[in-house]
Formats: sequence, structure tokens, C-alpha cells
Amino acid sequence: MKFNRRTHTCGELREENIGEKIVLNGWVDTRRDLGGVIFIDLRDRYGITQVVFEPNYNSETHKEGSKLRSEYVVAIEGTVRKRPGDTTNANLPTGMVDVMVDKVILLNEAKTPPFPIQKSGDVNEDIRLEYRYLDLRGEKMQKNLLMRSKMYNSVRNYFNDNEFLEIETPYLMKSTPEGARDFLVPSRIHRGKFYALPQSPQTYKQLLMVSGFDKYFQIVKCFRDEDLRADRQPEFTQIDIEMSFVDQEDIFSMVEGLMVKLFKETKNYELETPIKRLDFHEAMERYGSDKPDLRFDLEMTTLNEVFKDAEFKVFKDALANNGIITGLLAEGCGDYTRNQLDVLTNYVKQLGAGGLIWMRVKEDGLEAPVAKFMSDEEKQGIIDTLGAKPGDLLFIISGSKTQSLSIMGSLRLEMAKRLDLIKPDAKPALLWVTNFPLLEWDEDTKRFYAMHHPFTSPNLNEVDKLDTNPGDVNARAYDLVLNGNEIAGGSIRIHSADLQSKMFDALGISKEEADTKFGFLMNAFKYGAPPHGGIAFGFDRLAMLFANENSIREVIAFPKTSSAASLMDHSPSDVDEAQLKELFIKIR
Amino acid sequence: MKFNRRTHTCGELREENIGEKIVLNGWVDTRRDLGGVIFIDLRDRYGITQVVFEPNYNSETHKEGSKLRSEYVVAIEGTVRKRPGDTTNANLPTGMVDVMVDKVILLNEAKTPPFPIQKSGDVNEDIRLEYRYLDLRGEKMQKNLLMRSKMYNSVRNYFNDNEFLEIETPYLMKSTPEGARDFLVPSRIHRGKFYALPQSPQTYKQLLMVSGFDKYFQIVKCFRDEDLRADRQPEFTQIDIEMSFVDQEDIFSMVEGLMVKLFKETKNYELETPIKRLDFHEAMERYGSDKPDLRFDLEMTTLNEVFKDAEFKVFKDALANNGIITGLLAEGCGDYTRNQLDVLTNYVKQLGAGGLIWMRVKEDGLEAPVAKFMSDEEKQGIIDTLGAKPGDLLFIISGSKTQSLSIMGSLRLEMAKRLDLIKPDAKPALLWVTNFPLLEWDEDTKRFYAMHHPFTSPNLNEVDKLDTNPGDVNARAYDLVLNGNEIAGGSIRIHSADLQSKMFDALGISKEEADTKFGFLMNAFKYGAPPHGGIAFGFDRLAMLFANENSIREVIAFPKTSSAASLMDHSPSDVDEAQLKELFIKIR
Repeated sequence: MKFNRRTHTCGELREENIGEKIVLNGWVDTRRDLGGVIFIDLRDRYGITQVVFEPNYNSETHKEGSKLRSEYVVAIEGTVRKRPGDTTNANLPTGMVDVMVDKVILLNEAKTPPFPIQKSGDVNEDIRLEYRYLDLRGEKMQKNLLMRSKMYNSVRNYFNDNEFLEIETPYLMKSTPEGARDFLVPSRIHRGKFYALPQSPQTYKQLLMVSGFDKYFQIVKCFRDEDLRADRQPEFTQIDIEMSFVDQEDIFSMVEGLMVKLFKETKNYELETPIKRLDFHEAMERYGSDKPDLRFDLEMTTLNEVFKDAEFKVFKDALANNGIITGLLAEGCGDYTRNQLDVLTNYVKQLGAGGLIWMRVKEDGLEAPVAKFMSDEEKQGIIDTLGAKPGDLLFIISGSKTQSLSIMGSLRLEMAKRLDLIKPDAKPALLWVTNFPLLEWDEDTKRFYAMHHPFTSPNLNEVDKLDTNPGDVNARAYDLVLNGNEIAGGSIRIHSADLQSKMFDALGISKEEADTKFGFLMNAFKYGAPPHGGIAFGFDRLAMLFANENSIREVIAFPKTSSAASLMDHSPSDVDEAQLKELFIKIR
Repeated sequence: MKFNRRTHTCGELREENIGEKIVLNGWVDTRRDLGGVIFIDLRDRYGITQVVFEPNYNSETHKEGSKLRSEYVVAIEGTVRKRPGDTTNANLPTGMVDVMVDKVILLNEAKTPPFPIQKSGDVNEDIRLEYRYLDLRGEKMQKNLLMRSKMYNSVRNYFNDNEFLEIETPYLMKSTPEGARDFLVPSRIHRGKFYALPQSPQTYKQLLMVSGFDKYFQIVKCFRDEDLRADRQPEFTQIDIEMSFVDQEDIFSMVEGLMVKLFKETKNYELETPIKRLDFHEAMERYGSDKPDLRFDLEMTTLNEVFKDAEFKVFKDALANNGIITGLLAEGCGDYTRNQLDVLTNYVKQLGAGGLIWMRVKEDGLEAPVAKFMSDEEKQGIIDTLGAKPGDLLFIISGSKTQSLSIMGSLRLEMAKRLDLIKPDAKPALLWVTNFPLLEWDEDTKRFYAMHHPFTSPNLNEVDKLDTNPGDVNARAYDLVLNGNEIAGGSIRIHSADLQSKMFDALGISKEEADTKFGFLMNAFKYGAPPHGGIAFGFDRLAMLFANENSIREVIAFPKTSSAASLMDHSPSDVDEAQLKELFIKIR
């Protein structure tokens, strides 16, 4: 299996190479047999070059050429020729030339692939994942992983240029379940004890700030043992960032510089900064989402003021319970049929809404089943507040605040789809969402959970409310949103051991539990912790959006299925009893 | 806890800043109280700046300055001043100026650290690891991790410049114990099944070659659940490289380019290439090691020829059993005392040698207890072959080949230490060791194991011997050695499914077992696998050598102890019964 190493890649030959003796190595992409002359498109990562087996030129190699099949791996020795007459191919960078084959060495045969290499897009994803090594050979996955590779490089150069240190944090760490579920790793040396894989390097990067490293970044795998949705993987990649002696503004400007560079180097797009900002509470009221898609308008409007004296029981109750009445104007949709409206009503009901109020705007006012429950003043109020015109349709949802706004936010996205509001050439819409609530209440466990994570700093002027009204405290937390997707989230952290204790109190975490789980961090805060903050990007999702794909699996070389399995190597798998014995565990 | 953000770092102020109003943020490094004036060295990652609290200048801040203690975190507002008279400090880049303090804001207090931040070198390592966040604050660890961060950058830029793709491979993979022990991760979704953490991304990178990615690299964590020696960690970092359509020469020249860049950018040292090469068998005979330290000579010499007709039973037996008689000349050591010689004899005995033959070279021949068993011709043969002169000492060890050579190799290193042969300014000695045996026999399990790994290609002209005499087959494998440390190892891989089967046969791995463990790889080889090969660097060890440290823990931010525990966060730790229940496991 000796072979002649290539002198050129398959994407390299040009007219200036004409007459040269060259060697190519690659895969047989296609083979055409035209009147005794065999044309093969030879493929490698860099491109395609046409090689020609002509019986008159070399009858020996022509015979061998006739044995080649798709995906065979060959070394070709030959002479570069200008393609005759009108056979040049302007679509191919190498299309002005081809190679007359002097010698062919078969490096490896290939069975017929289970799907055509260049057309795996139509193939069932399970088959693609089983034969991932072939799926990756196709143009799409080659392009996506090449782009992803360039993105790593842009990110790292950016942080290196800005004097960040890349520091690796441990993968075998302590299990501190507070948030998602940990993946556990049994210890062989310490019987009955376990490591956990990191859900994020959060505590480590904060310790690095205590150590004075000042600016840290890492592109790092993280792990969450959650039930997978379409867009999740048990292991995922994070761009992890932390800085000392900063506030929110420093994080924003550092990240905006990164986004400018990434958009320029990956998409050749000149991103304008500063990136727009929106308070969480405003984002919820206007877009019904903490990650609004701003590629289109279609804003929601709160109608509480209009209905402040409402007789209509549904609205009256909503207001009495500190809830919300939110409206959405669908311009020009006044002709929606009853059937269309039923579909939308079902859509919001499935999301948990009690119902959907719709009203057609006519020349003479509002036409709707519920119109009779409203005063003329209220009807005019709706029209004025939403800016409705005859021919428009409008929706109203009322009830508890968060739920009603979220459901209307979903309806907003649904209407955008139906109205085709997101144009293929829409500019990327980036947005900072700020001032998130610090805590969210969980009805099941009757306790507060940290909305971001338990190390997030409350707004400094709201710290006192932690004791009296913790649910109202907002946080120095922020998300970066791209086209309606959260691509990064972060916060200014607590750097005082006292405030951190207070936070654990608010979360109902006892002193003992806090000490067992996070004692080392609280301890570290006592030895001179600087003010610090950071952010983390979901790298897979960012790459997915840059590649215009709908699933992160399209930008991950070897992803798992939604049941966290690999169809290629059949992991997870059985292991030997001896292995378990050494780890002091057995299967229940 | 509002604070004034810095306008400058603590390493930045120079004479041109004199008169400027500036803000610094940092830690109190030292405090001196001189005649009522307080001098504080304020420290951050970038350097140290002296700040001055003078009662006449500002009595208010002077009072506050007097409360500051070591490691307090402060924001200082002040005015840059030329240091008066002879108080400039030429050792400090900022030493021409200091800062008259106008205002001080205490950002955080600090308890007295358990050890002085700048003198952690003398501290018990367990204490350093428990308070790692403070240990990392010291100059040494700051310097080491800064260097390591630069090394990542050099490595990645090199591979990006050479058109390698960075591709992430999975951390949750299939357990295929063949070599070291896997760390296992129980699956929650698939009852009784387990993932393994990667010992290396070996199979994945080979699949990427099958996919046509051509040149791959990754800096990646790997995991081995082995009993730890001083220089091992359960998780370690690898620079992982794989290339298609290459042979050994391509790998060598690519890696040599990397080493030139790394030495230049990290050590400002101009490395000369090509790097010296040595056949494994020759390395063993001349240096008694597959990773010889070539910073000094002190070569071993095989004396089999001298003793081919030996009467001396020890030598006669060694030769009869296909063993070796190896000699080492210690120049000028003829005056070693009997006591010194006993110490050396014990040294080799502890390594498993039957004994150590030593001979003093005198004007009138060799003086030694065993001299009487040798003919004059043999004695002269020793002197001639080793080039011994009066006043020298020589050692002979005989027995089975590998063991005797290894033991003499250890004695060579020991003598180098005693003779102080490794000079502090010795040039770094790089070496390729090539042509390793493919297999090594294990007496315990009575089977062959792959010396490198089971995917390593045998020398192509030795493939036939796989059936007849597998122990004699050599491999297309190579190690890169720096100053007696293996820093990288790799091989040209098998890329034919048939040859891979043959290899599994030689290893005594049944078809069923091979199929269960590596079926996906063997399958991939059937669809057009290109010739390929690669190499992997132990990044921790490389960084350790570059930092002139003796332990990889000195270049890892948060290392584990030799019992694989973290003294800082006390992992591994107990976990909740509920967590185990969800994973379908229990503790034995």
C-alpha cells in the first residue's frame, strides 16, 4: 500500500500548471464513460479536479480507470492539460484544466455507500447518524465544520488580542445539583464517591477571578443530563468568559467586539454596534419573550389602562389578580375565516391559554363575539391604543402576567410565520435583554430558584428587598439574543461572602447545604475577591445560526440522538461486570 | 459596592503619565508605614504600582489607607507623580512613578491568607491545593498559566495557518477497554448502560480522515482511570493531530514546524531542524531507553561480541538465552569507594538487576572482584570497546535484553546526575524515536498487546510476519522526546479493514469482540479510507518542561492529588441516593 503522495490538492490546479507532471490523491466523486474515454471527478476537501483516462493516451491506465467506482481512493499521476474547446467548466475553480492520467494507484476500494455522498440531505437522519463518517464526507457537513473551525479561530484570536488568558478547568468536579441534573462518574479509588461532569465552569472561573487572572476565556464542553429536546445535546460547547473589575458595560463592549469580528470573518457582514438593549420586563410586554426576534416588528400592547374599569368578567378578574390584558394587531388580517381563527385559538389553548379573543376591525368598529361585553369607550380605546385600521384583525389574551405574555409572544411568532414577516435577506437582529428577575418561584417545590444561577448579583439598590420581597428583586443579568435565539447569557456576580449567604438564604438553601456544596467558593470570597462578571455563549447554537441550519446536530461532528445515544458506535453500551466491580457499583 | 473602574492596570504607568488623574484597581501586595507616610504596592495581573498615602496631601485618605491590609481589594483614585529623588525602583517597570492617593474605595476585605501569596513555593503542597485560588495568585502560578495560555495560542495558530480543521469529538463515548481503564458515566435514559470518557479521540479522528477532513487538530481533555504516579492526572490535555495521504515524513516535518514555532514564541529559542532520529532498537542499546535524554552523551555499549566465547557463567547464560551484556563507562570515577559502589549496586538491584559488575581501570588493567573470571583478551576487549582509560570506572549488566538495557539506562541517568552532566544552560535535546515494536508480550495474560495502540500500522514489508512471528514485527510508530521525556507519540494507521482484522487476530481479540468494540471503525474502512496517520502531544508535560517545573501540577490550574481527589472542593464526594436511583445504580 505504498503510494505517491500528492503534489497538489484537488482544488489547486489552474492554467499556469498546464504541462506539469503532478500527483493527486482523493476520492472518485463521479465517473463518466464517454465514447471510450473515462472522466473522473477526483474529490478531496479542497475541491474537485477532472482526470481523464484515454485509451489512446495510455491504454494500460485506461483499463485500470475502468475498474474505479464511486468513493474509491486513488493516487493519480498525470499531466495537466488545458481542457479542449468548449469543455471548460466555469463553475469549478479547476475547471479550465484536467489531468491526463499516466498512472493510477488504487489506495482503497469502497463498498457502495448507503446513500449518495452529495445528497445526504434527503436521507433519514438516523441513517445519516449511523454512517456519520460518510455523511460528514458530503459538501454540506464539510462546509459547516469548516465554518465552525474558522469560528473557533476568530473567537480565540479575539480574546488573545484582548489579553484574555485561556485556562482549562476540570472535567471531573464535585456534584452540586442546583439547576440541571449532573452526569456522574463513579470513583474507583474512593469507594461510593462520585465526580460530576461540569454543567459549566462557573465556580472555577469565579475562583480564577479571585486568583487575579482578571480576564479568562475558554471554549469548553459542558454536560447536562436533561431530557433532550430537538435542539439540545447531553454535551455541548460553551464560549466561557469572565472578567474582573468590570460592570455590565465592560462585558457588553467586549462581547460586541467579538460579534463584530465573528460576523465579519464568518459571514463577511459588517455588524453595527452598539447592539440594541431591552429591559426584560419591557421585552416581555412588547414581544412576549425574553428572547424576542426583532427581525420584524409586530409588537404587543398592554391594554390594562383601556380596561381599568372593565365590566367584562375575564378582564376584571385578570386585573384584580394583578394580571395583564395584552393585545396584538394583525394588520390586514380582517378577512381571516372562522376556521383560521379556530386554528389560532387552538394553538394558544394548547399553550395553556383559557381562550383567544379576536376582533375584526370594520369601518364601523369592532366585530367580535365578545364585543357586546365592552363599552364603546373601551372599543375605541383598543383601536386607538393598537392603532388599528379597518381590515385589520386583533387578538387579546388576558390572565396571569408571565403566562399571558408568553402565549401572546408565541402567537406573535406564529403570525409572523403566517404573514411571512421574516425575509430571507433580513439583517441579523441582535439584542441585549437586561435586568432579569433574580429569582423565580417554583410552585411544586414551594421555593425560589435562581433565574440565572445562584452567583448572580442582585441590583445593588434592590438588595434590601431580598429579605422582604425577593420575587421583586432584579438581577445584574443579561442575555444576548440573535434572531429570537438566546446565544449567550451572563451576569455580574456576587463577590461578597455576606451577600452570597443572603442569596442562599433567599433560595432556601441551608447554611449546611451551602457550605457542603459551595463552601470553597464562599471561603475564597473571604480572601479578597474582586468585583467580577462574565458571560457564556452556546457555541453550537451560534454555529447553527451562522450556518443557517435548524438543528445543532448539523454543526456537530458526532452528535447524539434525542435519546442521548450514538447510532454509530452504539453508546451508551453494556460494560463488563469487572469494570463495575472495580467502581463499587452495581445495576439496580 | 459601586466602584470606580480602572483607567490603567497596575503595570502600565510610566513617566509620560506624570500629572494625570488615574484610577487603579487591585490587591494590596505590601504596606509600609514610613514616618507617617503609607506606601502600598498595589498589585494586579499586569504588575505592581506604588501608591502613597500622605497625611499632608490628604489626611482623610491617609486615615483610610492606614486600615488597609494585605490582599484587600481596592480602587484608588490618585495623581501620578515622579518618584522623589533616589526612591525610583529600576526593577519595576512602573518604578519611576508613584500615585498620590486622592480617594480610596474598599472593594473587599481579606482575611489573612494561610500562606504569604508570593512565597507559596515553600508551602506544603496539600495546603496549596486546598487554597488553590490563593496559590494561583502568586507570581509563579500566574507566570506558568500565562505561558500555558500563550502555548495554546501558538499551537492553534500554527495548525490554522497550515489549513488544519479544529473539530470537537465527543466526551461521552463507548467504553472499549483495550489499554488503560475507562472512566464510566452511567446513563439515566438507558438503564444499565454506560458511556465512557475518552482515553483519546483516536477512533474519532480516524473516522474524520475517512470523512475526508484531511488535516485535523484539537486540544482536548482525555481521561484514564489509572493509579496515579507523581506525573499523572486522571484528566490530561492532549494536542491531537491527524492527517490523510501522508507518511511518517509528512508528520515529522509538520510537527517540527510546530516545535520551531513553540520554542520561538514561548522560549525565544531558535530550534534547529531537522530533529535527530533514532531507531527504537538503537536507542535501547545506546541509551537503555525509548526516550533517551540526549543533553549528555554517556552512551552504553553492547559487549556481546567481546564475550562471545565467555567462560563466565553469568555472561554465558545471558548469551545462550539470546540476552545482552551491556557496558557503561564512567570516566574518571575510578576512585569511587566501595560504599559508593554498593549504593549503585543496590540501586540497580531495586530495579530488578541480578547484580552490578563494576571494574576500576588501572594502569595495569582492570581491577574488580569478577576480573578473575575473564580472560586477558576479554578484559582488553572491554577496555578497547568502551574506550576506557586509567582512572575510569566501568559497569556491566547482563541478562534478558529489554530488562538489562532498561536498568543500565536508569544507571546512565543516575550517573549523569552524580556527575552533573546536565548543565543548566544545556540546549533542549529533541529526538524522534522510530520503528517501535508493534506488539509486546504480556506474561500474565499470555497475549500480545499493542505497544502503541491496535490501529498502528506494521511496517509494510513485515506484514507477513504477523502470522508467523508477531513479536518481531515493527511498527510505523514514532515518539518525540524532549530532554528524556516523551512529549508526543503517534503512528501511521492501518487503513484497510483486512489488515485491521489481521491485527486484531494477532492481539487475540476475537472477531465478535472486535466487532462489538470497533465494528463501526472497521465498517468505515470499507467505504474508502485514505492512508492516514497522526500524533498526539501530552500538553501538560510539554508545558511543564517549558516552565522548567518538575510536576505537571505546576502548570494545571486545578489539579487532583495523586489519589485523584480535589482538596479544594473535596471531590469526588457523596451524592444523593435520589441521583443514584435515577441512574439505576447502587453502591456495593
